[in-house]
Amino acid sequence: PFADLDLERQQRTGYPETVFGEGKTAEQITAIIEKFRENEQVVLCTRISPEKAHYVSQKIAQAKYYQTARCLVIGDKMTASPDSYIAIVSAGTSDIPITEEAAVTAETFGNRVERVYDVGVAGIHRLFEHLDVIRGAKVVIVAAGMDGALASVVGGLVASPVIALPTSIGYGSSFNGLSALLTMLNSCAEGVTVVNIDNGFGAAYSASVINHM
Amino acid sequence: PFADLDLERQQRTGYPETVFGEGKTAEQITAIIEKFRENEQVVLCTRISPEKAHYVSQKIAQAKYYQTARCLVIGDKMTASPDSYIAIVSAGTSDIPITEEAAVTAETFGNRVERVYDVGVAGIHRLFEHLDVIRGAKVVIVAAGMDGALASVVGGLVASPVIALPTSIGYGSSFNGLSALLTMLNSCAEGVTVVNIDNGFGAAYSASVINHM
Amino acid sequence: PFADLDLERQQRTGYPETVFGEGKTAEQITAIIEKFRENEQVVLCTRISPEKAHYVSQKIAQAKYYQTARCLVIGDKMTASPDSYIAIVSAGTSDIPITEEAAVTAETFGNRVERVYDVGVAGIHRLFEHLDVIRGAKVVIVAAGMDGALASVVGGLVASPVIALPTSIGYGSSFNGLSALLTMLNSCAEGVTVVNIDNGFGAAYSASVINHM
Amino acid sequence: PFADLDLERQQRTGYPETVFGEGKTAEQITAIIEKFRENEQVVLCTRISPEKAHYVSQKIAQAKYYQTARCLVIGDKMTASPDSYIAIVSAGTSDIPITEEAAVTAETFGNRVERVYDVGVAGIHRLFEHLDVIRGAKVVIVAAGMDGALASVVGGLVASPVIALPTSIGYGSSFNGLSALLTMLNSCAEGVTVVNIDNGFGAAYSASVINHM
Amino acid sequence: PFADLDLERQQRTGYPETVFGEGKTAEQITAIIEKFRENEQVVLCTRISPEKAHYVSQKIAQAKYYQTARCLVIGDKMTASPDSYIAIVSAGTSDIPITEEAAVTAETFGNRVERVYDVGVAGIHRLFEHLDVIRGAKVVIVAAGMDGALASVVGGLVASPVIALPTSIGYGSSFNGLSALLTMLNSCAEGVTVVNIDNGFGAAYSASVINHM
Amino acid sequence: PFADLDLERQQRTGYPETVFGEGKTAEQITAIIEKFRENEQVVLCTRISPEKAHYVSQKIAQAKYYQTARCLVIGDKMTASPDSYIAIVSAGTSDIPITEEAAVTAETFGNRVERVYDVGVAGIHRLFEHLDVIRGAKVVIVAAGMDGALASVVGGLVASPVIALPTSIGYGSSFNGLSALLTMLNSCAEGVTVVNIDNGFGAAYSASVINHM
Amino acid sequence: PFADLDLERQQRTGYPETVFGEGKTAEQITAIIEKFRENEQVVLCTRISPEKAHYVSQKIAQAKYYQTARCLVIGDKMTASPDSYIAIVSAGTSDIPITEEAAVTAETFGNRVERVYDVGVAGIHRLFEHLDVIRGAKVVIVAAGMDGALASVVGGLVASPVIALPTSIGYGSSFNGLSALLTMLNSCAEGVTVVNIDNGFGAAYSASVINHM
Amino acid sequence: PFADLDLERQQRTGYPETVFGEGKTAEQITAIIEKFRENEQVVLCTRISPEKAHYVSQKIAQAKYYQTARCLVIGDKMTASPDSYIAIVSAGTSDIPITEEAAVTAETFGNRVERVYDVGVAGIHRLFEHLDVIRGAKVVIVAAGMDGALASVVGGLVASPVIALPTSIGYGSSFNGLSALLTMLNSCAEGVTVVNIDNGFGAAYSASVINHM
Ligand SMILES: Nc1ncnc2c1ncn2[C@@H]1O[C@H](COP(=O)(O)O)[C@@H](O)[C@H]1O
Ligand SMILES: Nc1ncnc2c1ncn2[C@@H]1O[C@H](COP(=O)(O)O)[C@@H](O)[C@H]1O
Ligand SMILES: Nc1ncnc2c1ncn2[C@@H]1O[C@H](COP(=O)(O)O)[C@@H](O)[C@H]1O
Ligand SMILES: Nc1ncnc2c1ncn2[C@@H]1O[C@H](COP(=O)(O)O)[C@@H](O)[C@H]1O
Ligand SMILES: [Mg+2]
Ligand SMILES: [Mg+2]
Ligand SMILES: [Mg+2]
Ligand SMILES: [Mg+2]
Ligand SMILES: [Mg+2]
Ligand SMILES: [Mg+2]
Ligand SMILES: [Mg+2]
Ligand SMILES: [Mg+2]
Repeated sequence: PFADLDLERQQRTGYPETVFGEGKTAEQITAIIEKFRENEQVVLCTRISPEKAHYVSQKIAQAKYYQTARCLVIGDKMTASPDSYIAIVSAGTSDIPITEEAAVTAETFGNRVERVYDVGVAGIHRLFEHLDVIRGAKVVIVAAGMDGALASVVGGLVASPVIALPTSIGYGSSFNGLSALLTMLNSCAEGVTVVNIDNGFGAAYSASVINHM
Repeated sequence: PFADLDLERQQRTGYPETVFGEGKTAEQITAIIEKFRENEQVVLCTRISPEKAHYVSQKIAQAKYYQTARCLVIGDKMTASPDSYIAIVSAGTSDIPITEEAAVTAETFGNRVERVYDVGVAGIHRLFEHLDVIRGAKVVIVAAGMDGALASVVGGLVASPVIALPTSIGYGSSFNGLSALLTMLNSCAEGVTVVNIDNGFGAAYSASVINHM
Repeated sequence: PFADLDLERQQRTGYPETVFGEGKTAEQITAIIEKFRENEQVVLCTRISPEKAHYVSQKIAQAKYYQTARCLVIGDKMTASPDSYIAIVSAGTSDIPITEEAAVTAETFGNRVERVYDVGVAGIHRLFEHLDVIRGAKVVIVAAGMDGALASVVGGLVASPVIALPTSIGYGSSFNGLSALLTMLNSCAEGVTVVNIDNGFGAAYSASVINHM
Repeated sequence: PFADLDLERQQRTGYPETVFGEGKTAEQITAIIEKFRENEQVVLCTRISPEKAHYVSQKIAQAKYYQTARCLVIGDKMTASPDSYIAIVSAGTSDIPITEEAAVTAETFGNRVERVYDVGVAGIHRLFEHLDVIRGAKVVIVAAGMDGALASVVGGLVASPVIALPTSIGYGSSFNGLSALLTMLNSCAEGVTVVNIDNGFGAAYSASVINHM
Repeated sequence: PFADLDLERQQRTGYPETVFGEGKTAEQITAIIEKFRENEQVVLCTRISPEKAHYVSQKIAQAKYYQTARCLVIGDKMTASPDSYIAIVSAGTSDIPITEEAAVTAETFGNRVERVYDVGVAGIHRLFEHLDVIRGAKVVIVAAGMDGALASVVGGLVASPVIALPTSIGYGSSFNGLSALLTMLNSCAEGVTVVNIDNGFGAAYSASVINHM
Repeated sequence: PFADLDLERQQRTGYPETVFGEGKTAEQITAIIEKFRENEQVVLCTRISPEKAHYVSQKIAQAKYYQTARCLVIGDKMTASPDSYIAIVSAGTSDIPITEEAAVTAETFGNRVERVYDVGVAGIHRLFEHLDVIRGAKVVIVAAGMDGALASVVGGLVASPVIALPTSIGYGSSFNGLSALLTMLNSCAEGVTVVNIDNGFGAAYSASVINHM
Repeated sequence: PFADLDLERQQRTGYPETVFGEGKTAEQITAIIEKFRENEQVVLCTRISPEKAHYVSQKIAQAKYYQTARCLVIGDKMTASPDSYIAIVSAGTSDIPITEEAAVTAETFGNRVERVYDVGVAGIHRLFEHLDVIRGAKVVIVAAGMDGALASVVGGLVASPVIALPTSIGYGSSFNGLSALLTMLNSCAEGVTVVNIDNGFGAAYSASVINHM
Repeated sequence: PFADLDLERQQRTGYPETVFGEGKTAEQITAIIEKFRENEQVVLCTRISPEKAHYVSQKIAQAKYYQTARCLVIGDKMTASPDSYIAIVSAGTSDIPITEEAAVTAETFGNRVERVYDVGVAGIHRLFEHLDVIRGAKVVIVAAGMDGALASVVGGLVASPVIALPTSIGYGSSFNGLSALLTMLNSCAEGVTVVNIDNGFGAAYSASVINHM
């Protein structure tokens, strides 16, 4: 069999196994979802193209597709407690596909999300206008490509944990996100940890664990 | 003046500015400590060589030096609440200078720490023997050099947030920690975020923020 | 002539020259196969697209195409001795095209193969469930992308030689398999040697040599 | 002869050739200075160790050594016009050797310099406290190691040209200044151009050309 | 909202925010332009494909498209003072898309531009034929791919500031512009600062700031 | 004008300027050829796609296209002296497009060429079978991808100069020819110099200069 | 405690845990050896400086130091069966410290070793003179720095498994062994697997496992 | 024995094996020289520290040491034909140790050498002053660090073969010669081939082969 599903993961880590859609066929994805649904878990699939989403939706009626985020969710989102929330802060308009992957993941896993988009350091007053929302979050995700400088700036302004999410936005010596990744790993502000380039899912997963504490 | 100290940092982020000892003279370090002590903050200095520690200790009586961790602490550690703790897990004996930097940082910032050292995946049963301690932690730091594989393995076994700390231990194509860093950024287990190579301080800082939630 | 075939290779190394399909036209591949068939050797062609396979099959009747593995085999597989076998262990579903290249190669070269797929370290209990099969093998191939951590873990559990096969599965800082390659070269478990990224053929070739000892 | 001096450079570019001290012996440096002095030019030598400075000073009486900047100046500084100035902004205390190389170069070439040191983005309020001085400059040099984020932030706040000067300060994945260099090349703020890592001399040279316009 | 426009940028830095077209949909670009036009600013959009340009032009009548430069300009160019100018020097014919991005940007921002194209160092006499035009410029942009050597040569010949613009032209070990970028950062001629690979916009922006001094 | 042709190059270096086809339109190529033809020079164009070749051939009757080599030649080849020749040795079938670019270039520039293809070190006896031809050459070009080992082996066997030509053939950690390039630069045999990855033209140009001595 | 020894390793993998000497103090090494000796295992310590060897030898009488190999062995070597052997082939004199680490490891683990040193491809006839010894081995280790080409050549000549051992010998673009590592990973000969740069221990360990089959 | 000397190399390639001094002990070097001297060959040793030279000179009377070049020559230089010569052109004073390694090698191998040092492109008129000497050479070696631009410029000016010799001179993003190496590999001038960073010996060896044609 092509897949050996980790059905006990929810019990072990608090969350079910997520289906990473890249490099799997629509048939494989459908079969995996059906297997998980036997256990009545909510299933989150990431990196799903519109074509694959279309195929799966025809087989599995309740599948809901989030196009910008390229996510497919089957089953009800976990219930969010409204008191605490995750802030997702981004530098530019082009980061939105990645931040929406993070947002849909966080909401599926039962979190309230506040989006603060397009507040990169080239016009830093935009960030300060939203500082209350950002400081009020239990945990903050900061997404940026190019220079990735936003993570350090936010890291210096808040007391909550910051998860830095480098994106592959940029050109030339951004080297598909390497520049932003290195910037964030070398943040001169403390309290900043980093996930892989374009890993919106991973950033939201870790944020969710912290937000539910 | 050579330094523009961030005296309000404790108020803004919950922790005072830490003194990074590399690239500063013993005189500069002493002057900075004295400035901070006016505000009666505990001062943590990292990357302090024995020679610099000796110099500072002669000027500032209450300075306490942790040789393996290369840290100097002036003033009382913050009080730790004994209920929750940070587990620091490491792959090998050679990682100890970095894990001790993390441990001293965490203890200075008022955390209880449990050390689980030398349990790398080459003999994975050693890890399972300590699984209760690791699973009981509110947040786990996993340090490893060479293949860095321990972070993914621990990440798959616990429900708490994991902070992966790549170390520069290794040779040849470990490229001074690059191998372990990439492994950890590409962790196939979720809930793992990463700090810079050998950044024991940074791992402990973020862990402390989470542990105090 | 575009090719100077190594017709004595089987005599020298025990195995005939394999045709690497990438960068050769379907016409060239057909001509090479016909040349080898004069010597009545089994011919293995790797990295063959469905289109090229289709072309060749029309010219050479007995050609058998393995689509997932992208391999084309002309002539009978060598006879396998059933006593010893090669275990092919993989981390995830997405590694299957590479592991199948390895499996078809090994079977063509007269080996029994046991497949243990999708047992990556994120859910390490899956690996332990198959430990008997893995430990029973004369030689083990471990394929993984992303963090590549599975090779070190298996290396620490078995006494037989482990051939680590990094795959290009992943994104961002996996850098098309570089992350997994470095992890495997820096394995803290002993007995692990490494082949090129996505080189399923090469892993199986070396495994076959050992398995036939 | 070991050197073919560019004696017409001042006429061609406005500035005399500078002596780059690394990789030259103290004897060579002395001989070069003497040759230039025949033409009565001020001579600036960079990257001069205290030992070489000592040797040269014994041969050439009017040589003045700037130890932190590791620069040696022979002859009178060019006269500075007091109206316009270069602001040199730095992220941390450890950048000072590089920023002082820039400052001594700028002053030797007849510029007024305003130093704004240790105002990195981890405590961004420190930057805002000095914004008037920075905005008042005709051209701004921004030096930073580690995340290099300060250049983008300053770039977004001023109307004058910004010359970003990455320093090799940092550890681990800072890769001796590569991280800061990439950040600065990918600045999302406009008006930022970049010089080589630790090239304080080069940053000041370009700033001087602009400041004298 | 997908964009948080920096409407005060012109007041702060002298120039309005430019719309970076890559990674934005034609709809988003149109909406952003309309928002800026409320403030009556000239709007420059870079990295606009012909398809997107076509879409926008149908909604916004006065949009003017520069195909080689892939730029879209809405509103009147700022008035250029004819006395001083920017020279744009390039090594080869293939650099033209990048140098035209620079030229259109500079002209939109109110600068006179002199183009000196295809004068790379393989036939250096071509450069000398144009030396008067180059030396007469207030600031010089030098674009080159492959070896990037032209920037150093021009840097040694002029007294004005040189902005080096590496292009991704080349193959093999040019690594998409990395070779030219490194050459330019290591220029042995002084007065050379560098922008990101293919960043014609950024080179022109900085040149414009200097030219208007 | 988009091109500033180096019409005196033949006089200066012995060879006319060659037209590099990548990144130029078919119109531009045609115009350049026509300009050169006014001077009655033979014109060599490299990296010409079949489509561009078709376009140019319709405008310029005597254009001759070499499809495998992707070269277009207009005018008569220079006359070759039959006594000395260039040997072009390659490791595998897949290197042929690059070695043919070298062969067509060499023949156009008036050289006799001997091709020794597909003699890579995996079957080193194939190389020894052709040793007389290789040793008889005045200069030898050795092309190889993947491990690039052939250049060192040939370098150790011949007394004539060896020009190593790395190709981008390979996958995984061949990194598009980087592996072969590094191997060749580090050749433990003497008398080996290296050109850029896939630079068949450049290898042949240098070989031609030597062969005509 | 600083070490959590893997005392069951011999039972699990056939070999006891080896002590990696780098980054451990002489005291730590002594304590670890004593712990292992309680179980009466032979102890192999690698990467031991003469100073550390001296310290340990004073505490533990039977310790035997191999200076060139930088190995320390405590207890009797395992008994070697004389029939089969490991050939260790090296390119040059400078590789000897690494090949001796391999040789001592292999001999300690009960293998007969045949050394064929300094037969790099620059003088390939030297290799052919020793071909019988190399072909007679059950498994072959090939060590080389610089171009690393020897591994491919040997790989094409033998039927037994080849373990390629890149060394850090070289300069410039050898990048401390990276060049040889890449060459070996991209070997065009089959049957070659690779270990980390300078990992003589690891090559011998894997060879030993195969030789004992 | 630690060395397997290639005594027939002179017969095979025209030149005796050269002794690379790095990583060999003074004793090993002495023994190798004595072995070669039995065959009455001139022996060239490169990368010899003053200490090793001193040791060898005491054993072997006729050894002559060239300190700047770090070369040791035993026996008479081969006789040079005065008609043709090798020009060695360098960019700066700091390149001299490498260019002298090239010069001593060339002279030992029977070549007349003309040195044109310190004529880097920052003051390009210096190069033109020496153009006659450079153009008169049968082959030209061009050494440069930092931007490496000199090779392209010389390549465009001469008709003879150019061997580009990148040096590790520079700092920051010169990455120990990588910048100059890439520049030279991507030379837009033809007729340029490249050797390894700091490989003065290799450049001279290839130049000697060509000069003796
Ligand atoms: N997937 C593969 N990866 C690496 N080498 C291969 C592969 N398949 C075949 N080969 C080998 O590559 C060589 C083919 O080279 P060529 O002359 O280009 O066909 C032969 O030595 C084959 O045995
Ligand atoms: N710190 C520096 N960084 C870069 N270039 C410098 C520096 N100091 C001097 N230079 C320039 O480097 C060249 C010196 O080359 P050299 O002939 O080796 O002395 C001259 O053009 C100097 O103006
Ligand atoms: N070609 C370009 N390269 C770099 N930055 C650009 C370019 N064109 C526009 N920009 C700037 O990039 C930012 C656009 O970010 P956004 O549109 O919010 O994704 C603005 O600050 C623009 O001024
Ligand atoms: N030269 C070596 N290279 C790689 N691994 C080694 C070497 N020597 C010992 N080892 C292994 O490295 C591990 C030692 O880890 P540590 O706990 O730091 O001593 C053990 O699993 C050893 O078997
Ligand atoms: Mg924006
Ligand atoms: Mg251990
Ligand atoms: Mg799976
Ligand atoms: Mg500070
Ligand atoms: Mg041109
Ligand atoms: Mg072949
Ligand atoms: Mg030798
Ligand atoms: Mg000079």
